[in-house]
Amino acid sequence: MAKVITPRSEDYARWYTDVITQSQMADYSPVKGCMVIRPLGYAVWEAMQRTLDARFKETGHQNAYFPLFIPESFLRREAEHVEGFAPECAVVTHAGGKELEEKLVVRPTSETIIYAMYSKWIRSYRDLPLLLNQWANVVRWEMRTRLFLRTTEFLWQEGHTAHATEAEAEEEVLRILEIYRAFAEEQMAIPVYTGLKTQNEKFAGALRTYSIEGLMQDGKALQAGTSHNLGQNFAKAFDVKFQTKEGDWAHVWQTSWGVSTRLIGALVMAHGDDNGVSFPPRLAPTQVVIVPIWKTDAEREKISEAARLAVEELKGAFRVHADLRDEVSPGWKFNEWEIKGVPLRLEIGPKDLEKDQFMAVRRLDRVKVPVPRGGLAARVAELLERIQSDMLEKGRAFLRANTRDAGSYDEFKKALDEVGGFFRAHWCGSPECEKRIKAETKATIRCIPLQGNREDGTCLVCGAPSSAWVYLARAY
Amino acid sequence: MAKVITPRSEDYARWYTDVITQSQMADYSPVKGCMVIRPLGYAVWEAMQRTLDARFKETGHQNAYFPLFIPESFLRREAEHVEGFAPECAVVTHAGGKELEEKLVVRPTSETIIYAMYSKWIRSYRDLPLLLNQWANVVRWEMRTRLFLRTTEFLWQEGHTAHATEAEAEEEVLRILEIYRAFAEEQMAIPVYTGLKTQNEKFAGALRTYSIEGLMQDGKALQAGTSHNLGQNFAKAFDVKFQTKEGDWAHVWQTSWGVSTRLIGALVMAHGDDNGVSFPPRLAPTQVVIVPIWKTDAEREKISEAARLAVEELKGAFRVHADLRDEVSPGWKFNEWEIKGVPLRLEIGPKDLEKDQFMAVRRLDRVKVPVPRGGLAARVAELLERIQSDMLEKGRAFLRANTRDAGSYDEFKKALDEVGGFFRAHWCGSPECEKRIKAETKATIRCIPLQGNREDGTCLVCGAPSSAWVYLARAY
Repeated sequence: MAKVITPRSEDYARWYTDVITQSQMADYSPVKGCMVIRPLGYAVWEAMQRTLDARFKETGHQNAYFPLFIPESFLRREAEHVEGFAPECAVVTHAGGKELEEKLVVRPTSETIIYAMYSKWIRSYRDLPLLLNQWANVVRWEMRTRLFLRTTEFLWQEGHTAHATEAEAEEEVLRILEIYRAFAEEQMAIPVYTGLKTQNEKFAGALRTYSIEGLMQDGKALQAGTSHNLGQNFAKAFDVKFQTKEGDWAHVWQTSWGVSTRLIGALVMAHGDDNGVSFPPRLAPTQVVIVPIWKTDAEREKISEAARLAVEELKGAFRVHADLRDEVSPGWKFNEWEIKGVPLRLEIGPKDLEKDQFMAVRRLDRVKVPVPRGGLAARVAELLERIQSDMLEKGRAFLRANTRDAGSYDEFKKALDEVGGFFRAHWCGSPECEKRIKAETKATIRCIPLQGNREDGTCLVCGAPSSAWVYLARAY
Repeated sequence: MAKVITPRSEDYARWYTDVITQSQMADYSPVKGCMVIRPLGYAVWEAMQRTLDARFKETGHQNAYFPLFIPESFLRREAEHVEGFAPECAVVTHAGGKELEEKLVVRPTSETIIYAMYSKWIRSYRDLPLLLNQWANVVRWEMRTRLFLRTTEFLWQEGHTAHATEAEAEEEVLRILEIYRAFAEEQMAIPVYTGLKTQNEKFAGALRTYSIEGLMQDGKALQAGTSHNLGQNFAKAFDVKFQTKEGDWAHVWQTSWGVSTRLIGALVMAHGDDNGVSFPPRLAPTQVVIVPIWKTDAEREKISEAARLAVEELKGAFRVHADLRDEVSPGWKFNEWEIKGVPLRLEIGPKDLEKDQFMAVRRLDRVKVPVPRGGLAARVAELLERIQSDMLEKGRAFLRANTRDAGSYDEFKKALDEVGGFFRAHWCGSPECEKRIKAETKATIRCIPLQGNREDGTCLVCGAPSSAWVYLARAY
């Protein structure tokens, strides 16, 4: 705790790492590219899992678990898929003291192993839709590690569904995209743009990929969730067929979709400040911390009793902790809980006790407001809800302020370097112009909005006529 | 569903596999030794996780997540540990398209990678106790697979704690053993014996291992959870030291403990019958299934309405499902939900409707009892609690009836073949006698009770004086 966090203005990347390691959310492991998720970071993941898992189940999905290992030959069955993932794979060649007959890949994603099972389970239209989700670890070999954002092993959920018709699959893909959007905004307090990925940026093996895209404080975009319409690509590769009501055989239509522990990195980057992380109340592992302030033993007794009573009152409805440690000062505690991102601090000292109140301090902006001890729980509920909505509003204002019309290609390049953020730009639709932008500016087309972007214009790069604009940004 | 389950009396192993695959709890995967946990099986695991995770957190533990991969050299640092686990390891030799400089083992258990981090995190007595738990997949290469009981990859939780004193570590080990015992009996309705493993049967690298041992219907024991006192073995191997209050440096005292998806196999074996699995209500993914019975359209309308109202009333407090399918008969539905182990079925036909009642049928013993529609929720709660306690009582009676004094070595061998079960036997404490029993009878010392087993006797094998008896059984 005694170390100093590098300010964002000095070195954003270093700030990010400092904040995560000093808040004890995560640490580097001795295994190259792999991180350790410490209790604070894992508790955020558990909070995310609770909400998302409930939403998946409400919409008819069930959880299952498929093998970690995938026979190498499975990966090869879908041509684009193997091309996309084979270079990143970790490969098991020996096991049980012997060399394996067929090498096993540690899953980078599970389409192939799951659909091999689907081809066994699905026989009839009555077996459809099949709506499964898996919470699991996956491995994609990374040379440059960034805690939560880019690690060799990460945790995620991957949904895999099979449908009788193309329309149902597309409906599912968009339903999930909406769950992700709502989760990002309502739980993470991170407003996002949603839309379609270009063919160049889609998932390896998909027909189409949709994503949600947030904006970090340094002006870079972050893809926070993807939902893929797989069409019949994998169904054909793995022979997943069903007998229709009419008695014919047809390939199923499939989707897959996922979010990962990368979301935790997004939370840090979107809300953190030079004092540490800052969690939105709905996902905060500790929502309220009570810090007593005393000098004399007599004060100590009364005040710690008030703190204990407050915990009793709050603990049924909130994740609350009273920091009654003796060996560190109140100021030390304030710092520590700010680093760890607790959204609401309740201080209580002799004067507060006299006035029968707590002093509430918002992590978001350090705004202080006295709160009477009577009716504490109701007031805390209001304060937390208000912090949650203020964080979202702050994010919305930031996103609005940092989404610009691209102007000319030169103006775009200049603004990209100077202020970053999202740019609305017309694009002719050609992969050549897309690649040129990426090569020359490191920005990519983050997504093509599903609505509201229809208007006549000319391609940012080649000047050809265009009927819609897209979002461009540099991204994590 | 149309397939027939092999009766237990005909082939117990085949019955076990039939029940699991036909209830769709799990399936074999194309990867040798790996299984697929299907939604029904996974939902049981989720129910187990909910309860255990809450107990761990109540007792001060936090969840974290450590890397899947362990550098080979780490495994070697503790001599007994590597000897125990190296032969079962899956090894990653290539990743990202290149051969690795140091091979990585896919974790068979995580002591070594976790304690490498502990040596970094623990500095002072203030950092102790460190009480972490991890929910994860692990891999131990298996040649002969048995769904849930013995698979190359399985899911588990592994607790890892570090303490300042030997006494605190021992207290922790026994606290967890008690959590496991209570979980087995109160949630799984499987009574267990608890005790100490022999040195021969302990965890590779531990000072002492404690376990809970249940009895399956075929008379074989099943180790359902283990809690290890690791002493300072790993602390010394990984240099996990702390500064004491007095300013000296000392190695920590450690524990590790775990239960796995093997528990699901135990549930099936302990409670299943020739009609399928049979879940205790507290862990049943579906606790109540409502099956309407109608002939005419008029009946159908009224009865399905009654079923829907019942779901409305019950769904807040129970996991309930109304099976309103048209394409299969009520008899088909009865079979299907029996295979899938739903503890309570509520039937409602025209006569029941006239009497304003449901007919409740217990999965456990098919005992029927009419239940008035008024006050349904309260009655269902009673019925489920009763089923839960009856299942435990049945298990207790079975365990009592199948725990015998060993008598002479010849009598023991005869009884072991004829009836199986647990045997109380005096043992002199020598590894030689222990090994001879195993070699000659395939039975092992399951555990040495912590109390109640002190009495004078003579060793079952060598006749030397013994002051306490142990539990012997053949085991999974």
